[in-house]
Amino acid sequence: MEFITGPKKKDVRTLKELTSPEYLGKTVTAEGAVHSIRDMGKVAFIGLRSRCGLLQMVWLEDETEFPLELLREGAFIRVTGTLEPEERAPRRIELHLKTAEILSAPEGPLPLPVSKWKMSASLEARLDRRPISLRNIRERAVFKIQEGIVKGFRDFLHSQGFTEIHSPKIGAKGAEGGSNLFRLDYFHHPAVLAQSPQFYKQMMVGVFDKVYEVGPVFRAEKHNTKRHLNEYTSMDFEMGFIEGFEEIMEMETAMIQYVFKLLKDEYQEECRILEIQIPNAETIPAVRFDEAKKLVSETYGRPIRSPYDLEPEEEQLIGRYFQETYGADFVFVTHYPSKKRPFYAMDDPQDPRYTLSFDLLFDGMEITTGGQRIHDYKMLMEKLKARGMSEEGMEEYLETFRCGMPPHGGLGIGLERFTAKLAGKDNVREACLFPRDLSRLTP
Amino acid sequence: MEFITGPKKKDVRTLKELTSPEYLGKTVTAEGAVHSIRDMGKVAFIGLRSRCGLLQMVWLEDETEFPLELLREGAFIRVTGTLEPEERAPRRIELHLKTAEILSAPEGPLPLPVSKWKMSASLEARLDRRPISLRNIRERAVFKIQEGIVKGFRDFLHSQGFTEIHSPKIGAKGAEGGSNLFRLDYFHHPAVLAQSPQFYKQMMVGVFDKVYEVGPVFRAEKHNTKRHLNEYTSMDFEMGFIEGFEEIMEMETAMIQYVFKLLKDEYQEECRILEIQIPNAETIPAVRFDEAKKLVSETYGRPIRSPYDLEPEEEQLIGRYFQETYGADFVFVTHYPSKKRPFYAMDDPQDPRYTLSFDLLFDGMEITTGGQRIHDYKMLMEKLKARGMSEEGMEEYLETFRCGMPPHGGLGIGLERFTAKLAGKDNVREACLFPRDLSRLTP
Repeated sequence: MEFITGPKKKDVRTLKELTSPEYLGKTVTAEGAVHSIRDMGKVAFIGLRSRCGLLQMVWLEDETEFPLELLREGAFIRVTGTLEPEERAPRRIELHLKTAEILSAPEGPLPLPVSKWKMSASLEARLDRRPISLRNIRERAVFKIQEGIVKGFRDFLHSQGFTEIHSPKIGAKGAEGGSNLFRLDYFHHPAVLAQSPQFYKQMMVGVFDKVYEVGPVFRAEKHNTKRHLNEYTSMDFEMGFIEGFEEIMEMETAMIQYVFKLLKDEYQEECRILEIQIPNAETIPAVRFDEAKKLVSETYGRPIRSPYDLEPEEEQLIGRYFQETYGADFVFVTHYPSKKRPFYAMDDPQDPRYTLSFDLLFDGMEITTGGQRIHDYKMLMEKLKARGMSEEGMEEYLETFRCGMPPHGGLGIGLERFTAKLAGKDNVREACLFPRDLSRLTP
Repeated sequence: MEFITGPKKKDVRTLKELTSPEYLGKTVTAEGAVHSIRDMGKVAFIGLRSRCGLLQMVWLEDETEFPLELLREGAFIRVTGTLEPEERAPRRIELHLKTAEILSAPEGPLPLPVSKWKMSASLEARLDRRPISLRNIRERAVFKIQEGIVKGFRDFLHSQGFTEIHSPKIGAKGAEGGSNLFRLDYFHHPAVLAQSPQFYKQMMVGVFDKVYEVGPVFRAEKHNTKRHLNEYTSMDFEMGFIEGFEEIMEMETAMIQYVFKLLKDEYQEECRILEIQIPNAETIPAVRFDEAKKLVSETYGRPIRSPYDLEPEEEQLIGRYFQETYGADFVFVTHYPSKKRPFYAMDDPQDPRYTLSFDLLFDGMEITTGGQRIHDYKMLMEKLKARGMSEEGMEEYLETFRCGMPPHGGLGIGLERFTAKLAGKDNVREACLFPRDLSRLTP
């Protein structure tokens, strides 16, 4: 019989630990992957890649106890050596190698030049070999930034009294209907994959007052653009007892400020690698949909073609306008036309052709859709009726409103879009570990 | 043009704020749902339910400025009143009501007696009306405990240098094959829902060294038991550079200790409501699979029927044995037979009929399956061959090992099972917000 009490102290030092002065001059053990080898004859410089970054190691003909040939790019190794100060090394330290143990050696050369600063490979090639291409330092950094965004989102909302929920992804009917649903057979019953946690997060406002969820959503849209994925990670929140839909925008603004502070504090290294300038989110302008359309049309001489929708190019121009005029990287566009919003959107009592809703544009791309929802049962039923919609499949949703619901609203943020924009990536696929699109279902 | 800078200070106090002495004797505003009304004639006691719990409010014929009839069970309200000390009230405070504003009133009585301490309704009835039944204080508390478990899992692993990942849920082939896959049409290509993030988390160990994910998994198993869900939330981690599979158990043990401390510190109220005694996880015994079977067979006189598997009753008896003998609520059962583990499980070099793997039993139920994986490409290919398996659909997984992978292992924890056991719930459906089983696809 054994008894497990917790981790034993290991004799292996992380790169982060090694940057502390206490290890200088000492013999230490480190582990990671051989990222690069620069052979200079009697001396060789080896980059050891670990989750913390790259450690410069030196193989010295006279000191190191193993032949350089033992090491190969891509091999996972455990090494010992003496840690020495070295001003020219990236972390100002280098490890003078003594011994090495090969934990796992690759069978032949890697299919991509992962040790290059910028891999000269097409997006397709990098996505086809994602588990390998992510071993590149810059490719990988995008997903540390993504981790920071999600962590900031959760930590901030937790601090504001939100409860985390886990809503089901298989259901009998979609929250917003429509043709963009993936369908499957669920033990001989027709079922669909959730295109959003909308109904569930609303219903849970009646239980927890404020809720959030970070999870996958599925859209069977036949778009093949740089902005679309057919499966993506949605960061959703929904808050009760609001007195106006502005409160939702205020909460999002504070959340983004929190995320950016977290990235500055804890993800400096990744920001440096990706040359990210944390944008300004201290003050975010909010402009009405119809005003924004007019503004852009007048300023850039672009005729308004679709009065009820923003075309991607219009979003870009709105972004440009607010960047040029106010130095703003973010813009809230508010009061979207009612006919383009789902039935549960709250119409503006001042002018019911518009809704108390908004999108948030980041650098000219929509990353959030949100707004106040109808909480009054009768109003909800009337809206359904006015749209000629059936109650079928929404019985429990409607029943929840029949039992009373506080005024509420919320939003959904596309994690990959947010990450891509922040990391300066043009294609949302760059910010998704394993993207799913019209033609990509693997790896 | 408006500019959004963050939340404005609201004049509404939460129950948590009101328990601080500074508000005693003051006029304050609060909001929530009318949970219960006890009408005593000239006085009435009203429970105001919010995310923080129940606030006792008093309606006084001589003081309150509205008729009692204004309030109805289930209504969402905003009230003002004077906060007074009251030793007999649950939080030792009560709000003497002045004014009330009805934010939303239910259409008729609620379909379930949510204000009862224990609702006298069947599980089926409660699940059919989940958005309403969760308004019951005890039903709701289960999901605050669940939130704490997930938060503890993430925070602990983050502190240990793990990176959070988001793996795709739609794929071309399942990680472990088999018949328990939900199938769907993905733009005219056959696709399946992920039954685990197994392949992805392993591949990401080559990138981030250590990773974790909390997300939905889908099992098309035709089990209709108290232990099974067809969609559940899996908490997975995978760690590289291990020197033995014990390190995985050690990491899990420390994680559970962290979760329990978090629950004790931040979820006392929910622990009290559910009468949870936080179990002992300081030391977790680990027993070999074959020993455990023999132990239980000898101690309880139960013949060994299936030598390669643990039957649910055997798991219960193992739990009982270790509870009775060592006062242990958890037991690791190690070295499961190779033929019952997936091809990627690392066989024990001492005896390849068994694997370097484990299950964790909590109170006699399996809540975790984990173990060391094969990291050597040749060994992996040989195992595939020996099992007569095809490489089809695993090309990128295998390619990752061909490029080198550190020794690694990990585990998956069923969140609902963990929550149910901790909350003393017999049926795993009690610990899933919206369970999906053979006959349940709604709400």
